[in-house]
Amino acid sequence: MTAEPDPLLSPLRSTLPAVARVARIPAGFAAAGATAGIKASGKPDLVVVVAQDGPVPAAAVFTPNRFAAAPVRLSRANLQATGGTTATAGYARAIVSTSGSANAATGPDGDADQTAIGRAVAAALGATPEQVLHLSTGVIGVRLPLAKVTTAVARVAAAGLAAADQALTDAAVALCTTDSVAKMATVTVNAPAAGGGTTSITVTGICKGVGMIHPRMATMLSILLTDATAEPATLREILRGAASRTWDQLSVDGDTSTNDTVYLLASGRAGAAPAESSPAARVALAQAVEAVARDLARQQARDGEGATSLLTCQVTGAADDADARAVARAVISSSLVKAAVHGRDANWGRIAGAAGNALLAERAVLEAAGLGAAEASERANTPARVDPATMRIAIAGHLAYDGRTGGPTGIDKTAARTAMDTEEVLVRVDLGLGDGSGEAFGCPLTEAYVKENSEYTS
Amino acid sequence: MTAEPDPLLSPLRSTLPAVARVARIPAGFAAAGATAGIKASGKPDLVVVVAQDGPVPAAAVFTPNRFAAAPVRLSRANLQATGGTTATAGYARAIVSTSGSANAATGPDGDADQTAIGRAVAAALGATPEQVLHLSTGVIGVRLPLAKVTTAVARVAAAGLAAADQALTDAAVALCTTDSVAKMATVTVNAPAAGGGTTSITVTGICKGVGMIHPRMATMLSILLTDATAEPATLREILRGAASRTWDQLSVDGDTSTNDTVYLLASGRAGAAPAESSPAARVALAQAVEAVARDLARQQARDGEGATSLLTCQVTGAADDADARAVARAVISSSLVKAAVHGRDANWGRIAGAAGNALLAERAVLEAAGLGAAEASERANTPARVDPATMRIAIAGHLAYDGRTGGPTGIDKTAARTAMDTEEVLVRVDLGLGDGSGEAFGCPLTEAYVKENSEYTS
Repeated sequence: MTAEPDPLLSPLRSTLPAVARVARIPAGFAAAGATAGIKASGKPDLVVVVAQDGPVPAAAVFTPNRFAAAPVRLSRANLQATGGTTATAGYARAIVSTSGSANAATGPDGDADQTAIGRAVAAALGATPEQVLHLSTGVIGVRLPLAKVTTAVARVAAAGLAAADQALTDAAVALCTTDSVAKMATVTVNAPAAGGGTTSITVTGICKGVGMIHPRMATMLSILLTDATAEPATLREILRGAASRTWDQLSVDGDTSTNDTVYLLASGRAGAAPAESSPAARVALAQAVEAVARDLARQQARDGEGATSLLTCQVTGAADDADARAVARAVISSSLVKAAVHGRDANWGRIAGAAGNALLAERAVLEAAGLGAAEASERANTPARVDPATMRIAIAGHLAYDGRTGGPTGIDKTAARTAMDTEEVLVRVDLGLGDGSGEAFGCPLTEAYVKENSEYTS
Repeated sequence: MTAEPDPLLSPLRSTLPAVARVARIPAGFAAAGATAGIKASGKPDLVVVVAQDGPVPAAAVFTPNRFAAAPVRLSRANLQATGGTTATAGYARAIVSTSGSANAATGPDGDADQTAIGRAVAAALGATPEQVLHLSTGVIGVRLPLAKVTTAVARVAAAGLAAADQALTDAAVALCTTDSVAKMATVTVNAPAAGGGTTSITVTGICKGVGMIHPRMATMLSILLTDATAEPATLREILRGAASRTWDQLSVDGDTSTNDTVYLLASGRAGAAPAESSPAARVALAQAVEAVARDLARQQARDGEGATSLLTCQVTGAADDADARAVARAVISSSLVKAAVHGRDANWGRIAGAAGNALLAERAVLEAAGLGAAEASERANTPARVDPATMRIAIAGHLAYDGRTGGPTGIDKTAARTAMDTEEVLVRVDLGLGDGSGEAFGCPLTEAYVKENSEYTS
């Protein structure tokens, strides 16, 4: 008989459905990735996605940055116009995304540019300008080369968008800026069919990552498409809830972009039961969306500027899930922890210090994660419940601190250093206070991050 | 006739009294810096400060980190015991500080060590253990060499502490860990004398800085001494208010230490009128304390790990001071802004992006800065009011963005780069919304910071 291994020394298992890191375009959508000439490098920089049968339900999460870019402000207005109730859920026929200029802080001229792009897309695809959603990424304060973009949009539309996985893969490539790899994720799960029986629904996502990533009630550029059936408000609830456990738990460098956006569009073409009338269909869609969001967030953290590995913190034993997510986020956001992970240094003291500073998320994030309005308001930004006397910390499978037995365990730092020399450095924290759990994703802080970001624009 | 130069292109002038970067020990105190052998380097690592005539009024601001170190927890208990009302104001006879081990996350053994140190100091100086305040700094999770510390304390006491500027200078040196310079500041101002007429009061401060600096309702290790006259509660109010405009506006790396502490002790030996009965005496003391705190915070930012210059952001035209301080803090805390300053890159887009993310401070900080309890509670952690259409940004005397005239000004980046090659890089932001102003202090993010912190403990 052997003793059970300490569960803290292994990763927490996810209960979400399995993800394939490919783009599988759901029925009802077509896409294209193309080169408009925005990027000096000549790399692809234009994405167009279209819902083939006309406008479909759409939801969005946008950056809260007060310097929100022109594409963000225009898309909010468009969703308000098509949905009629909020700026984050409505109907959309197309998505257009440009890479190379963020079209942020470009003043009234930048707004006019974005409006003209929307008109060009609408004209080329037979939609109204309000049915076009926008994304843009790149340098702040530089205008888009408008004529190049509108010319390329017309060319792409004339050539025809393809309802093909390769077309969505091309789009994922064209979303990138300094990303080292294109980021894609697909989940297919069973769901109740509209007419009884079972069908399968697909959620696929493409996104860009890199730097200025610290979502705060927001995400970075991501497009999620599904053939499931749901109304705009339902899509928004599902998307916001998933983001609160995935993108809101991601940080590359603590800066929240002016352009962060994620869209979720649902074509209904899988013939699934509507999420509003079938709880099982809703759960299937919500789990698939969250699985895709989680995997994309992990890809973004792994490819953070200068990153050499993924840094994951999983927290268990918290008084509740909100506390667990707060502690996980504090650990992966700490510059000192991130630098220590870069140095493969099992510096548990910095992890303890970061955990001791953890603050709960903002009200909107707590609400999205399922807390009631009153509790979310009361607990927003308050310290997470952490007790040094019950906390335990394991780094890459090595127990470093156990508050229940006096604190430091005398971790073998050489063995831990070897274990940390891996693609994903896992920090496990058990708070010993309850059943709450949560996770967060980040990356090491490296000299390469500093070098890249001290030499970027000029 | 020449046009008035744009005030945004010059530093905002401080209205605080002038500061000398020296230690001038106020009447009523004696000090010593010594070598106990905690640091492997053999450098000074022990500070003892004593109030010569017996216990004096004392106030403190401590870290809110849930992993608060043994010296923090013991000192809170001691102030509670001597003052009887709060854990942040009471009476103290002595301060003892050790450098090399933080005595944090060391469990019950670490608490016992700190208690024993307090007993040794009390015995050597003829005080009670509750009259001793503690500080400690260094590696987390490593125990202090107790016998070395208590032996050194006895030796220092036997040799006698000196009421001399040099002794306090020695103490400033012994506070340091990886600081490149010792940090000291002194202000002497006139104040009403107790018996009528005028006297002069002195506030002097010593502190350590370096890394894990992102005060949150707290500061790092700092000792302030004055010969002014004030009760503990008054000292606490003055200290907390000054910290809200100085140390709470300082960030080196976004991590809040387990050991952050500042003490303010008042001997009353200048013969000044009590701050409680003389508003003019109170203002004189408060301004002197804030001037010392501000200068020490600037020294700490300038000497941040890997820093090559001081990064100051001054904000004017805010709807109120709380908004201004939030925007200033957001700018100097942004990794992207910090990396750009390292690269002498006048990347105003990142400054705009950081300003757009600014969140107000926590409730306690807002209250300390003068907001009423209800307003502080309502506004804590909410977004600062920022409008891209009225904002202006100047970097090192070069106007980069003017929302009133369409945004980007077409800054001469080469000229700005030359202007940024200086000891203090000044970012000025005018929000164009009101009369609020505020400032914050940080440092560039450099490869040296990453290198130092990825190779620290192991």
